[in-house]
Amino acid sequence: MSRSIDLAVIPGDGIGREVVAQGLKVLSAVLPQDVKLETKEYDLGASRWHRTGETLPDTELESLKGHDAILLGAIGDPSVPSGVLERGLLLKLRFAFDHYVNLRPSKLLPNTETPLAGRPDIDFVVVREGTEGPYTGNGGSLRTGTPAEVATEVSINTAYGVERLVRDAYERANARPRKKLTLVHKNNVLVYAGHLWKNIFDRVGQEYPEVTTDYLHVDAATIFFVTQPERFDVIVTDNLFGDILTDLAAAVTGGIGLAASANINPDRTFPSMFEPVHGSAPDIAGQGKADPTATVLSVALLLRHLGLDAEAARIEEAVAADLAERDSAAAAARTTDQIGDALAVRVAS
Amino acid sequence: MSRSIDLAVIPGDGIGREVVAQGLKVLSAVLPQDVKLETKEYDLGASRWHRTGETLPDTELESLKGHDAILLGAIGDPSVPSGVLERGLLLKLRFAFDHYVNLRPSKLLPNTETPLAGRPDIDFVVVREGTEGPYTGNGGSLRTGTPAEVATEVSINTAYGVERLVRDAYERANARPRKKLTLVHKNNVLVYAGHLWKNIFDRVGQEYPEVTTDYLHVDAATIFFVTQPERFDVIVTDNLFGDILTDLAAAVTGGIGLAASANINPDRTFPSMFEPVHGSAPDIAGQGKADPTATVLSVALLLRHLGLDAEAARIEEAVAADLAERDSAAAAARTTDQIGDALAVRVAS
Ligand SMILES: CC(C)[C@H](C(=O)O)[C@@H](O)C(=O)O
Ligand SMILES: CC(C)[C@H](C(=O)O)[C@@H](O)C(=O)O
Repeated sequence: MSRSIDLAVIPGDGIGREVVAQGLKVLSAVLPQDVKLETKEYDLGASRWHRTGETLPDTELESLKGHDAILLGAIGDPSVPSGVLERGLLLKLRFAFDHYVNLRPSKLLPNTETPLAGRPDIDFVVVREGTEGPYTGNGGSLRTGTPAEVATEVSINTAYGVERLVRDAYERANARPRKKLTLVHKNNVLVYAGHLWKNIFDRVGQEYPEVTTDYLHVDAATIFFVTQPERFDVIVTDNLFGDILTDLAAAVTGGIGLAASANINPDRTFPSMFEPVHGSAPDIAGQGKADPTATVLSVALLLRHLGLDAEAARIEEAVAADLAERDSAAAAARTTDQIGDALAVRVAS
Repeated sequence: MSRSIDLAVIPGDGIGREVVAQGLKVLSAVLPQDVKLETKEYDLGASRWHRTGETLPDTELESLKGHDAILLGAIGDPSVPSGVLERGLLLKLRFAFDHYVNLRPSKLLPNTETPLAGRPDIDFVVVREGTEGPYTGNGGSLRTGTPAEVATEVSINTAYGVERLVRDAYERANARPRKKLTLVHKNNVLVYAGHLWKNIFDRVGQEYPEVTTDYLHVDAATIFFVTQPERFDVIVTDNLFGDILTDLAAAVTGGIGLAASANINPDRTFPSMFEPVHGSAPDIAGQGKADPTATVLSVALLLRHLGLDAEAARIEEAVAADLAERDSAAAAARTTDQIGDALAVRVAS
């Protein structure tokens, strides 16, 4: 029996192309001989939009559906009006492919930089909702541009959408040694959505008697992220709160250059998508300065999603080993490509 | 000519009563002989709600209108369902009295604890919108409690509401030495509200040529709060983003025990309200463990609002001097009351 991975690759903008190249390099190096890797590159992002006015044509969306998974670099450029590529491409993919589990692990690895004094023991994962909340694009503006303008944004939350996510989060918490799940919301102000989330969180929790639960308002959660991050194991939260918390989590665990993410469709109706948390960083694009580690770690999440757990672990070990040697001047001076090479060598050996 | 301050006092719940007592002690000590202080206490909060079912009766709301200002301790108790007191009392006051400027200064004072390594130079103020955004209570739920439930929260943003806030923020930035104003939003996803905010921010900015401006997405802003907080001078932002950012700001500048806030109606149509950022902390209530400094600093904001700038400065100097001596074991062991006494002595001398 032969095995193969049919991967869609969206390098995107800025440093996206550079880091994706390293992700693919490490992926090829880690795969067993009998697994064939096929990739197809999709030209999507700022330059495509400038050239054709398209963000994600239906034909390409159709074609993407046929792959086993998607690896995405980064989307966005200051030359494109804010929101065009985010709504028209990145979020369109997450919504069209029903990526309801947006998974973002945070672990403070040895030898990485953290702005926190005392280097607390950080090892948690945020399970962010990916298809609802204030991200639905539901809203509008009236009398736009006039002194009488009213603009609204509607956060939509369904029992259907929240329950499937919360269940996924309980499963993940149950599978970890500490078995702790924290719901983050703002149910003292956003009472309608907040009660929906809290009720489902409490009800589903009865099926997981071994999981310890906790609830925090989002404002309080940010405090604990910097004063007591070791208290977190698995966090489940809304799309927008998850967006904010995972950037903060990345900042305290070695920076956005290390933060991986997976946009998962657990039902496997559509391909899942893997991407670093960071953006396209146009200021350093094309200079070989970008750290590809976040993309490489996203490849590990991709492998785990495809059932290649041992290979995923090998990548994570390679990254930890690489980071452990980053205090030398030579290691710190490496280019994007050189870091990719080093990781590829490690996973292959 | 005689001067007087007619102050409404809402001690509220938990540690609220303890910290408010110290705030009033310091206020009395700092006021010049010729300024008469009159206070009226309002019994509002959890115990009132348990006793009568009332959060903020109309008669009391009417009566509160007659005061020069309001000093509030803290509202909330775990025995009250989440949202009841927040929406029915705290937010009701902010909305009824049109407290559209929610002012929250953050300064890392000497000798205070910060979780950040290297003690960066932090001195910024967040100008948070207080009467719109996702805080309006606009939303609802359909088929509540069933698997088909849909719950919505509507963020309402008006040119009227955003422009008056943004103008206030430019004025504050213009009056500070660094003259820098950063807008924080999420205009790549919340495009309707985001464009309204950004357009008004840019347009009003033309009237303040000396103010340097910047824009950050809220997720990126949280990164800079921990990696580069010295980059901020004045921040202007939406009600919910401001809620999240100011808790994080408090955490990095010495903790929530020091964070003051002012709910200001700059038009002076209604009394403004001054309160610590922290909550009622029922776990330590009644034990003399609460730090009243945040309330005392809120009293300084109150004095400045009433035009007593010199007295406000005396309080801030007293707090800085008190903090500078907190490394002694004796200072660290003081009760709420003793800290209040020490500050009262300092401002009087
Ligand atoms: C680029 C943007 C639309 C996106 C988001 O808000 O989800 C990004 O910040 C992220 O976290 O992946
Ligand atoms: C208690 C709550 C309603 C309030 C808010 O969300 O504004 C608090 O967190 C604050 O920041 O003053």
